[in-house]
Amino acid sequence: MAGKDDDFVVTPWEVSGKVDYDRLIELFGTERIDKKLRARIYRLAGEKHILLERELFFSHRDLKWVFDEYEKGNKFFLYTGRGPSGSVHIGHLVPWMFTKWLQDRFDTPLYFQLTNDEKFWFNPELSIDQVKQFTYDNALDVIAVGFEPEKTYLINDIEHIDILYEIGVQVARKITFSTAKAAFGFENSMNIGGIWWPALQAVPAFLHSWIYGTKTPCVIPCAIDQDPYWRVTRDVAERLGYYKPASIQNKFVPGLQEGGKMSASDPMSAVLTTDKPKLARKKVMNAFTGGRATAKEQRELGANPDICSVFKYYQFIFMPDDNELNKIEQQCRSGEILCGECKQILASRMIDFLEKHQAAREEAKERVHEFSAARLRDEIKR
Amino acid sequence: MAGKDDDFVVTPWEVSGKVDYDRLIELFGTERIDKKLRARIYRLAGEKHILLERELFFSHRDLKWVFDEYEKGNKFFLYTGRGPSGSVHIGHLVPWMFTKWLQDRFDTPLYFQLTNDEKFWFNPELSIDQVKQFTYDNALDVIAVGFEPEKTYLINDIEHIDILYEIGVQVARKITFSTAKAAFGFENSMNIGGIWWPALQAVPAFLHSWIYGTKTPCVIPCAIDQDPYWRVTRDVAERLGYYKPASIQNKFVPGLQEGGKMSASDPMSAVLTTDKPKLARKKVMNAFTGGRATAKEQRELGANPDICSVFKYYQFIFMPDDNELNKIEQQCRSGEILCGECKQILASRMIDFLEKHQAAREEAKERVHEFSAARLRDEIKR
Repeated sequence: MAGKDDDFVVTPWEVSGKVDYDRLIELFGTERIDKKLRARIYRLAGEKHILLERELFFSHRDLKWVFDEYEKGNKFFLYTGRGPSGSVHIGHLVPWMFTKWLQDRFDTPLYFQLTNDEKFWFNPELSIDQVKQFTYDNALDVIAVGFEPEKTYLINDIEHIDILYEIGVQVARKITFSTAKAAFGFENSMNIGGIWWPALQAVPAFLHSWIYGTKTPCVIPCAIDQDPYWRVTRDVAERLGYYKPASIQNKFVPGLQEGGKMSASDPMSAVLTTDKPKLARKKVMNAFTGGRATAKEQRELGANPDICSVFKYYQFIFMPDDNELNKIEQQCRSGEILCGECKQILASRMIDFLEKHQAAREEAKERVHEFSAARLRDEIKR
Repeated sequence: MAGKDDDFVVTPWEVSGKVDYDRLIELFGTERIDKKLRARIYRLAGEKHILLERELFFSHRDLKWVFDEYEKGNKFFLYTGRGPSGSVHIGHLVPWMFTKWLQDRFDTPLYFQLTNDEKFWFNPELSIDQVKQFTYDNALDVIAVGFEPEKTYLINDIEHIDILYEIGVQVARKITFSTAKAAFGFENSMNIGGIWWPALQAVPAFLHSWIYGTKTPCVIPCAIDQDPYWRVTRDVAERLGYYKPASIQNKFVPGLQEGGKMSASDPMSAVLTTDKPKLARKKVMNAFTGGRATAKEQRELGANPDICSVFKYYQFIFMPDDNELNKIEQQCRSGEILCGECKQILASRMIDFLEKHQAAREEAKERVHEFSAARLRDEIKR
């Protein structure tokens, strides 16, 4: 939550206004990922990553400690999640691609929670069958990102609750309604499922250590709006004999329209992973840019990439090469390239990307079981 | 909860003072089991039962409707439970014996919930391993009562949560914190597990219908202090497409000491099912009675069976024969029998009963799986 005097709101349920990320770091009490930490990550990973270079991942908790442990030989595991309340769009994939990079470079297990119970509780209009369908559909997108099946566990809350519940029961006893109210702003009108939910969102942060009887650090790649959950999780962790989970936090991936993050609920703002090429192109060609009112004016004065959604998509996903990005930025500012042409470049890349993703997503249908957290049942000694 | 002007308290967590059961019917809005309903139960069951005759089971909700359905051919199922926070005592067995009678006479499935999660949340001093151990130990006592394995499902909440959770998720969305607060008096200091709990206690009332896709009436035999849970359960039932559960409610089985119900936490008030004969005899011989200060006085003036815990044990379990009970009551009132002698009779019967129960309990160790709700997993189509 932002302060009273801030003109933006960031909670797990609402992101609005122009988010001031420096202020958010201050409000949430997280740490900025500075040059030194970035260099350390690159050294340990053996390569750079554009989402760190370009500061989409900008904030963290306890990463330095995680790498200290790592260098001592105590490897970490990853935990992230997705609330299956609708279709996946390109904006969702960006942090997952970064998570895949972490998995690949650090050779870590990944627990990926599909929070269908949460979405059912927080979206009164969704039916149980709808959240189940979204869970399956979204799982295909997760798998299509290319995670390592041997090390990736997709947790479907309703289906795999038996794997989570015993830890959840213990977490829940440590969180009072007062605490949940303070952290999440719950009112008395909140349903009792939603109130219990923070216990269950904490569970995967402890799951690996619980199953294997270890004390293994956990790193959570996630958007910064989830931080209130991790504050509560961190509060209970040590009292339950676990390490506090660390996190590496990203800014919101902007939508194609002006302001706000890409959202599946605003159809034109989001390119869905299942969009046909024609529709994807249409959405890109309708994107909000930093262009001028007329072509003539733009040729003379140049455009503004700082506020342009197309440029953000180059930055975070479609133009990983710095030279190319610098060149197009310069062409934009100088008026050498017009927005229509620039959007055509993005549309082509978007469509190429979508085609590959959609093929992988189709293949994923045969492979869902390979990623299922059901495999963990055999590991749990009761 | 009793009213402000009542000098007793009845909640799911506290029973104290001299309970006025007529007042409780009024406060809770339940119905008395009258002669006519009793006669109808006997007719359908094909025999009488002392716990109805002697009004331990005295109150109900919707039983008339259940028997209307039964006579139309729509049979009911039974749901009851046990919070495994300690050892089982004789007082616990009494309503279970009645439940077994219902199962036998009406040939019904029984869902028996062992609420280890609840006990963990409401008893901060219990560890997870302790509630698991009590769950196992208490299950042995349930099985020893003689339920029909083919039709009895012992639900271990933590172990079988996968069977309950999908319904629980839907129940929880219909209950706000305000509702839970009003029904149970929850404060903001309640932990979020305890707040979620009423959703999970509701689940077995719907489980049979959910699994088999039927609309089957549910009858809950239980102590009347559980009624707040059923009020909440009944509130949500129809909105979820189920019948409101009916209930048949018992008074508290008195302890062997003055006042209150038999309680495992007051060691001398309760004969545990695992007590050695010598200890059981000692507890009975220490029981609170309606006797006089001296033998001489008692011979002259007689004693008072109405306040005598020994007499209550005759009534509810150890003297099913009315003639025998009437005779001993008369001997008591007339001073013909002294308390020592009377307690010896109870002690012998108690020990006989215990020996049989303990043998059955020992055998139950080999049969736990025969009663496990895990068998339901194969029935659930997802």
